[in-house]
Amino acid sequence: MKFSIQKDYLVQGVQDVMKAVSSRTTIPILTGIKMVASEDGVTLTGSDSDISIESFIPLEEAGDEIVEVEQRGSIVLQARFFSEIVKKLPQDTVEIEVINQLQTVIRSGKAEFNLNGIDAEEYPMLPVVSEENVFSIPADLLKHMIRQTVFAVSASETRPVLTGVNWKIENNELQCIATDSHRLAFRKALIESANSIPGANVVIPGKSLNELSKILDDTTDKVDIFMTEQQVLFKMKNILFFSRLLDGNYPDTSRLIPTESKTDIFLNGKEFLQAIDRASLLAREGRNNVVKFSTLENGLVEVSSDSPEIGKVTEELQSEKIDGEELKISFSAKFMMDALKAIDGTEVKISFTGAMRPFFIQPVNDDKTLQLILPVRTY
Amino acid sequence: MKFSIQKDYLVQGVQDVMKAVSSRTTIPILTGIKMVASEDGVTLTGSDSDISIESFIPLEEAGDEIVEVEQRGSIVLQARFFSEIVKKLPQDTVEIEVINQLQTVIRSGKAEFNLNGIDAEEYPMLPVVSEENVFSIPADLLKHMIRQTVFAVSASETRPVLTGVNWKIENNELQCIATDSHRLAFRKALIESANSIPGANVVIPGKSLNELSKILDDTTDKVDIFMTEQQVLFKMKNILFFSRLLDGNYPDTSRLIPTESKTDIFLNGKEFLQAIDRASLLAREGRNNVVKFSTLENGLVEVSSDSPEIGKVTEELQSEKIDGEELKISFSAKFMMDALKAIDGTEVKISFTGAMRPFFIQPVNDDKTLQLILPVRTY
Repeated sequence: MKFSIQKDYLVQGVQDVMKAVSSRTTIPILTGIKMVASEDGVTLTGSDSDISIESFIPLEEAGDEIVEVEQRGSIVLQARFFSEIVKKLPQDTVEIEVINQLQTVIRSGKAEFNLNGIDAEEYPMLPVVSEENVFSIPADLLKHMIRQTVFAVSASETRPVLTGVNWKIENNELQCIATDSHRLAFRKALIESANSIPGANVVIPGKSLNELSKILDDTTDKVDIFMTEQQVLFKMKNILFFSRLLDGNYPDTSRLIPTESKTDIFLNGKEFLQAIDRASLLAREGRNNVVKFSTLENGLVEVSSDSPEIGKVTEELQSEKIDGEELKISFSAKFMMDALKAIDGTEVKISFTGAMRPFFIQPVNDDKTLQLILPVRTY
Repeated sequence: MKFSIQKDYLVQGVQDVMKAVSSRTTIPILTGIKMVASEDGVTLTGSDSDISIESFIPLEEAGDEIVEVEQRGSIVLQARFFSEIVKKLPQDTVEIEVINQLQTVIRSGKAEFNLNGIDAEEYPMLPVVSEENVFSIPADLLKHMIRQTVFAVSASETRPVLTGVNWKIENNELQCIATDSHRLAFRKALIESANSIPGANVVIPGKSLNELSKILDDTTDKVDIFMTEQQVLFKMKNILFFSRLLDGNYPDTSRLIPTESKTDIFLNGKEFLQAIDRASLLAREGRNNVVKFSTLENGLVEVSSDSPEIGKVTEELQSEKIDGEELKISFSAKFMMDALKAIDGTEVKISFTGAMRPFFIQPVNDDKTLQLILPVRTY
């Protein structure tokens, strides 16, 4: 193998596939990055066996020559060293050559690295994903939908299926649901070419979605998504992102969401978030970071918390409108802040059905996003 | 005590004195910030008993009203909560009031915090520093001199005096010296009004200088420095920074610096730094992060390192000039990078007197800065 490549493209490609590489793998070769030089360009692969990322660097792009392959071939190099090295190379061009079977020389300017490589034949094969069941979403929307749901997955392995986000396709609509059984995040969106997916219903690990969202850019470029029984593949321009799916049945969450409410409060989401943030400064010291929330006269609401040793905090907020009964309720400040951050609308509507019943938050006049929180018993 | 204050000034003042507050203190009241409202303004104090910082916020500055004191008084508030709270207050003005002796109310907009304070009478007195022995340095130069020396202090408490920087005044010149006995950093500068300091020779803890340099701004504003037997005081506009001094005699380091050299190499400091950085990528895995350095033909020098399991790296650099004997030497990549970062000049001169003797690095045509390194035996 012998090729020269523009450093910036190599650095970017390595950075992308590194997101799948873990130093804590039980399969030693997976601490490496696989590099294949073919007649079309250079392909880099990183994997921790749950997530696999393949980045392709073409010979040229927009008329610029990026890669020149002198001799085809492949090698696996230690990811940690290789990624540090490429970042620090002195010149804009890099030459990579395998000599004596596995010895790999990396040259740039007058700097020459000589790394011990591993035979690429030993690197595991990537999963084969059938290209049948496919739908598309713009990259920025996909990134957004991940951000609005993935924070609510369970951090505990007690019920492994809850560490993932449930993706369901119904009626040309993708629904994403995450819950740790104390709160739930829901987001849906229309998708293209969904007809070919017959009732897909999968659970994607939260970790995979977090890594994927780091790679997704804020463009409207289409991402093609392929689903099989065990794998999901996100296909972007020059990048393939594979994730295994979680086994097990995701609970039916549709019945958790109340259909009626006794108190609806309309608030400025940003002001409310900041008030909760202030109240949580003292709540953090107490048990569970719990704040109290209650309606007052004249459309005012009150957020408060106290921690006997340190002190207390109270804040009044003017709501836009309060419909229905008076209310006193307590909830986790963290859950409320997470939910408000995930909601885009400036104006939010919070719907309560009682102090001990789950309540939900939505942007006003928008049912694509819903955040559900279970209250805490304190009053 | 009751006063109102512009939030930005309060946040800045709290942030400055927080640099002295440690959560790991054995004196509980030192986890707090002392606040005193007087007829002139508000004074904040933080201390960990080694470092004490006092920040004064005047009634007005440049015609803007900053503080309005309604009732004089003082209180001590938990630093961690108080600093978080002031940052997150909703309005530009803050009202602080002590009610019922120690209960402190912090109001801003419709947010109201009620903190349990501690009697300010219990807060330790700051050291009294006589204003006799004083000299001045511009803030930016002082910051620079600290940065060029403090990194070389010892991290080990085996010889406590080496964890500080030796400051000596001789002939209207301030000399700063730091060594961990494997390398040494030296910086000197002319100072003003030094005549009143009769042969000052003190050791300032490295930690104190690191915290001080975070407070110093990049202006030419004068900093007045007062030295006593046990304390040093840095007096800036509205900030007093006290540090205790280290006990014990600092070793006489003047004889460590070679007066002759057998090989002088003139190099571009930045290129050399980057080459060492690349070589150290593999050296880090081996023992002590050691790289090899040798002269070649035609003014070339070679930097190399190898780590049998991972690979090796070699890089040639064109020097400006090599005077004297051929040379092969090994040294810590970290020490060399620290030294090169501390040297301002683009062109550096490295003076060697043999493979096992200390060598030193200076900017070309500048003897105000000197970095000395002990080599490592490998050849």
